[in-house]
Amino acid sequence: MVKAIEYADASPEVRAVFDDIKATRNVPDVNNFWKWLANDPKTLKRTWESLKEVMAPGALDPLVKEMIYIAVSITNGCEYCIASHIAAAKKRGMSEAMLAELIAVVGMANETNRLVQGWGVPVDEAFRR
Amino acid sequence: MVKAIEYADASPEVRAVFDDIKATRNVPDVNNFWKWLANDPKTLKRTWESLKEVMAPGALDPLVKEMIYIAVSITNGCEYCIASHIAAAKKRGMSEAMLAELIAVVGMANETNRLVQGWGVPVDEAFRR
Amino acid sequence: MVKAIEYADASPEVRAVFDDIKATRNVPDVNNFWKWLANDPKTLKRTWESLKEVMAPGALDPLVKEMIYIAVSITNGCEYCIASHIAAAKKRGMSEAMLAELIAVVGMANETNRLVQGWGVPVDEAFRR
Amino acid sequence: MVKAIEYADASPEVRAVFDDIKATRNVPDVNNFWKWLANDPKTLKRTWESLKEVMAPGALDPLVKEMIYIAVSITNGCEYCIASHIAAAKKRGMSEAMLAELIAVVGMANETNRLVQGWGVPVDEAFRR
Amino acid sequence: MVKAIEYADASPEVRAVFDDIKATRNVPDVNNFWKWLANDPKTLKRTWESLKEVMAPGALDPLVKEMIYIAVSITNGCEYCIASHIAAAKKRGMSEAMLAELIAVVGMANETNRLVQGWGVPVDEAFRR
Amino acid sequence: MVKAIEYADASPEVRAVFDDIKATRNVPDVNNFWKWLANDPKTLKRTWESLKEVMAPGALDPLVKEMIYIAVSITNGCEYCIASHIAAAKKRGMSEAMLAELIAVVGMANETNRLVQGWGVPVDEAFRR
Repeated sequence: MVKAIEYADASPEVRAVFDDIKATRNVPDVNNFWKWLANDPKTLKRTWESLKEVMAPGALDPLVKEMIYIAVSITNGCEYCIASHIAAAKKRGMSEAMLAELIAVVGMANETNRLVQGWGVPVDEAFRR
Repeated sequence: MVKAIEYADASPEVRAVFDDIKATRNVPDVNNFWKWLANDPKTLKRTWESLKEVMAPGALDPLVKEMIYIAVSITNGCEYCIASHIAAAKKRGMSEAMLAELIAVVGMANETNRLVQGWGVPVDEAFRR
Repeated sequence: MVKAIEYADASPEVRAVFDDIKATRNVPDVNNFWKWLANDPKTLKRTWESLKEVMAPGALDPLVKEMIYIAVSITNGCEYCIASHIAAAKKRGMSEAMLAELIAVVGMANETNRLVQGWGVPVDEAFRR
Repeated sequence: MVKAIEYADASPEVRAVFDDIKATRNVPDVNNFWKWLANDPKTLKRTWESLKEVMAPGALDPLVKEMIYIAVSITNGCEYCIASHIAAAKKRGMSEAMLAELIAVVGMANETNRLVQGWGVPVDEAFRR
Repeated sequence: MVKAIEYADASPEVRAVFDDIKATRNVPDVNNFWKWLANDPKTLKRTWESLKEVMAPGALDPLVKEMIYIAVSITNGCEYCIASHIAAAKKRGMSEAMLAELIAVVGMANETNRLVQGWGVPVDEAFRR
Repeated sequence: MVKAIEYADASPEVRAVFDDIKATRNVPDVNNFWKWLANDPKTLKRTWESLKEVMAPGALDPLVKEMIYIAVSITNGCEYCIASHIAAAKKRGMSEAMLAELIAVVGMANETNRLVQGWGVPVDEAFRR
């Protein structure tokens, strides 16, 4: 469990996922997340397939999806997740100015979330779906 | 503290903020968040001014900013914040399909954040800024 | 489990805790937290004894401790805990103005916590203990 | 505060707790958590006594309790707590396969928690206690 | 999006998932989570398939998995998730005494997680994997 | 973005904020938070102005405000924020004994927050504002 599973030491099942990640992302090697997750081959496969589906272009632009990922990761304080999704978003065109604004919005949202809870604000009738 | 400050009962200081919110957003009345926050006029004014600055168009599209706001609010479990920012995002053009994808990404991000922390994945050298 | 254990229906073990809460706080009845916790008498007793020790006057003023409790509860989004500790803090002298400032600080702290994590700020050498 | 209190430098009050931890767990030394907590002897004693009571065999198996501890610690992103409770769970028989499944469940639970909050799902009548 | 998708109004794609849930769990109807998620058929299908895989018997007992789910949901403060997984765990044999102990462990873990972070405890060498 | 903006390399806009921080706090240099935030000059300025307003003496003592900041930062697990606000609170007179009690209260509050949510305790009528 402790360590990364490198391609050379991986089972055929794990290699198949690694190959698909490398082909889909056009990268020479997978990043640490996948090497560690390879200790649990079923979760590796399920997570990769889910991620491919969730992050694919659809009603939302892939870059917007990466930025949403960053927003969640900052709110959860997950250092690895922040770093890896910033890298992914930059590949898709996120500029430093866009990242700066994203962080500012995440900060502000965390502040107003707590103001709402501190003041016990009830949901407006107009906002009920 | 307990209750909303309605325009009719508001001080000139609070009314000035309410007027600016109504003019900026082109709405007949402010929503509950502001009415409750009006119990603390300084925080009301500071929060509105910060929000206007943060949510203004810039490197990121205002709709993208609203979606980031929703992502944070879901991750924090703030019901009011989810409801109010979904309403705001819809005004700016978010479709049901976009919202569905946004929620799916937020769910997935929360899952992988915990997988990362559970496995103790170290940050890849390539991701260090 | 589902419901409150009222004094009339409580075991001697639970009644002893309820009696001590009522005497210590000089209240005619315990609040819902204790009535629900009474479904698990050991946790009821341990929690009450821990709380008495933690919230007793010491290096910090009891009112300051109640305000710290509110700060944590807002950050965790625990509605019951916010409401009950606001009531407790008011009994100890917290004014509406103090509460308003407390909520403002909690909001601001949540914002800057996320700015720090978004920007990946390293700890200053001077802050290392 | 800054540093660990080692047994040799500890007060009799702290030593008594350390001795009990070492005897109960059959270990030659206490782990860092207790050495740091020893800076606050009252909290050290109360926390150890609470932990002994909470983690003792009862309706739940001690290993199950350790796994619940890990689940909470991953959700809170507490690196120390994850590491120390994985070590404790392994001592009680948790295999790598069990840990992998535990992490997968924690990930999944964090995902569905957010899907529920994003969609605003109301509690089913049948689930109300 | 606003409302539950009932079986009678569901698309064949959604019905297929509902049928599988009902057959797998041997229940006459699916619970609200699935009815709301049915507004996003792809996420409905993916989530159900992931959940079936993750919650299946393996190295961990299904009841233990349900209890881990409850632990995460309490830590995230997700009322729906707490209620639905308590119901699921009771079906699998969780007694009131087991639930009471589970809640007590979750409370204790949240406390010590914060003590660790407040004191800045470094990971013991022995705990490094 | 990656790195600190030192005074020597800063724009006049950033220098003005740095100068105000140094004058207000009577320190020879600003801490890392501001140097990193300087990558986003607008957020730097807004955050500093907000912080000055929120942390100024008012109904609450500045030291109490710093302790509330620490409580939030521990609950969010933000290492930088914990370290920097402990330093700030010590400057304002927080003793080691006060810090120890503060951490103990934060731990206890996190525990009881989860007990409340696990047991599903309803808000007492008397606590409704």
